[in-house]
Amino acid sequence: MSARVLLPWTDIDVPEGLGAAYYDGGVPPADLGDVEFYVLPYDRGPEPPKLIKELPSLRVVQSLSAGVETLVPLLPEGVRLANGRGLHDLSVAEHALALIHAAQRDLPRWFAQQTRGEWSREHTRSLADSRVLLVGYGSIGQAVERQLVAAEAVVTRVASRPRPDEGVHGVAELPALLPEADIVVLVLPDTPATRGLIGPAELAALPDDALVINVGRGTAIDTDALLAETRTGRLRAGLDVVDPEPLPADHPLWTVPGVVITPHIAGGSASFYPRAKKLAGEQLRRYAQGEELLNLVVQ
Amino acid sequence: MSARVLLPWTDIDVPEGLGAAYYDGGVPPADLGDVEFYVLPYDRGPEPPKLIKELPSLRVVQSLSAGVETLVPLLPEGVRLANGRGLHDLSVAEHALALIHAAQRDLPRWFAQQTRGEWSREHTRSLADSRVLLVGYGSIGQAVERQLVAAEAVVTRVASRPRPDEGVHGVAELPALLPEADIVVLVLPDTPATRGLIGPAELAALPDDALVINVGRGTAIDTDALLAETRTGRLRAGLDVVDPEPLPADHPLWTVPGVVITPHIAGGSASFYPRAKKLAGEQLRRYAQGEELLNLVVQ
Repeated sequence: MSARVLLPWTDIDVPEGLGAAYYDGGVPPADLGDVEFYVLPYDRGPEPPKLIKELPSLRVVQSLSAGVETLVPLLPEGVRLANGRGLHDLSVAEHALALIHAAQRDLPRWFAQQTRGEWSREHTRSLADSRVLLVGYGSIGQAVERQLVAAEAVVTRVASRPRPDEGVHGVAELPALLPEADIVVLVLPDTPATRGLIGPAELAALPDDALVINVGRGTAIDTDALLAETRTGRLRAGLDVVDPEPLPADHPLWTVPGVVITPHIAGGSASFYPRAKKLAGEQLRRYAQGEELLNLVVQ
Repeated sequence: MSARVLLPWTDIDVPEGLGAAYYDGGVPPADLGDVEFYVLPYDRGPEPPKLIKELPSLRVVQSLSAGVETLVPLLPEGVRLANGRGLHDLSVAEHALALIHAAQRDLPRWFAQQTRGEWSREHTRSLADSRVLLVGYGSIGQAVERQLVAAEAVVTRVASRPRPDEGVHGVAELPALLPEADIVVLVLPDTPATRGLIGPAELAALPDDALVINVGRGTAIDTDALLAETRTGRLRAGLDVVDPEPLPADHPLWTVPGVVITPHIAGGSASFYPRAKKLAGEQLRRYAQGEELLNLVVQ
């Protein structure tokens, strides 16, 4: 019995000497006893991870997500785990810009007018010249920054720890930085240190009409505090992630004017696929040739 | 009687020796016989231009628009006219990006879901990796390009005439370029050469699912042809300008899925004002000191 790899897409290069089976999160193929390398379908719910335990020959799990905390406990002894670090960076960064433009340019208003056939004009805010506080300065934050700078916004960088050589402030400086921000962009993972980072005091420190963008994890913002500050119209928000998630259908945040919400879709755009397939192909090549794998989280 | 300037905003620096009167397009002040320099209120309808003929001491008209064709016939003999070239570049460029993101990221869908409190997810297109044909490569086009490149789109430049040294193709090459474009961005003035530039043949040359963006003038696109190609779902569009304008309330383009429309608001965002005030202040300074004015169209 020759080894096989289990893949979510048929257009990934499979090295000679390896067979392939395909599983996109629907019904798994039968007879997967020879699968050594499993590339998890991306964003297909709870079933694909469960399959990890059903593969007796498994040696490597390749996730296409950056965060793999929930997979680690599922790994059998001796099975390595690689993550999808970087695959979503551009997609998430781009969505941050989409939310900013939507909020600054009043897109929900124009789209509502469009449904009524209404041609009614008013000047809008802009992104250009806005002072943007970018909180989270990893690879996604840096991609956001490039697009903000090209739009002639003025960016201030913040990360968990100050990096003075790179002009990066630490989160401890937020109280002094927030009052000078027209737009705050949060690009933070969910960790004990980031949970509730933006609470009532931080929101209160923002100037009137400031815009809060979140494309990281919903837990970074105290939802009740954000609700309170947006309901009065003092602050605005553009959120791809919220806490809790999914946001319940009757949650009051859905209907606050000045708040735009997308359902955690920042990472899942077309620009992800070619990058994911390229990584999967490269990992299979390395596996076949006995080379070290990229992005190993558990080895 | 000392000379006065007529201004739309009170926070413009007025040089010593000149008086000021203020008119924002509402009711004009009385006794404007001493006004030598008139900065037209921006985007305030047909009344402000009419005032030109009511100012017997007038020497200079400063428009804050780039296009001043309609003002030229109103100018009394010997009155100079300066335009607002460049003031809107960034605002228009930014709005092009807003329309692109809205279309690629399905923002109308998410905003409609938001009104229903619906958390339902699907992957979207992206701007990154998209092949963008940028038609119109003046200062606005170049500002659009910088933002597209930062978003990792692949840009092909087109202008009325080819400029091989700058990698700019001529419009005559459009038939060969359109089939390779995922997104076409039109940033063209209204001239005899641009009218109807994108007609049935050009639209037919685009690949399926291509996105047509227009932030220049509506006349560049044959509206009926665009309607035909978007109604079937073959093409998509993001339009800030249309032909005719305003688009009538019962026009079928309003309700085509895959078409987003904003009511000619690209130029009128917050980033315009500081630039406009700076130009007005600089022109007044030059006028007071007898220096040559910027942006003169009629002298």
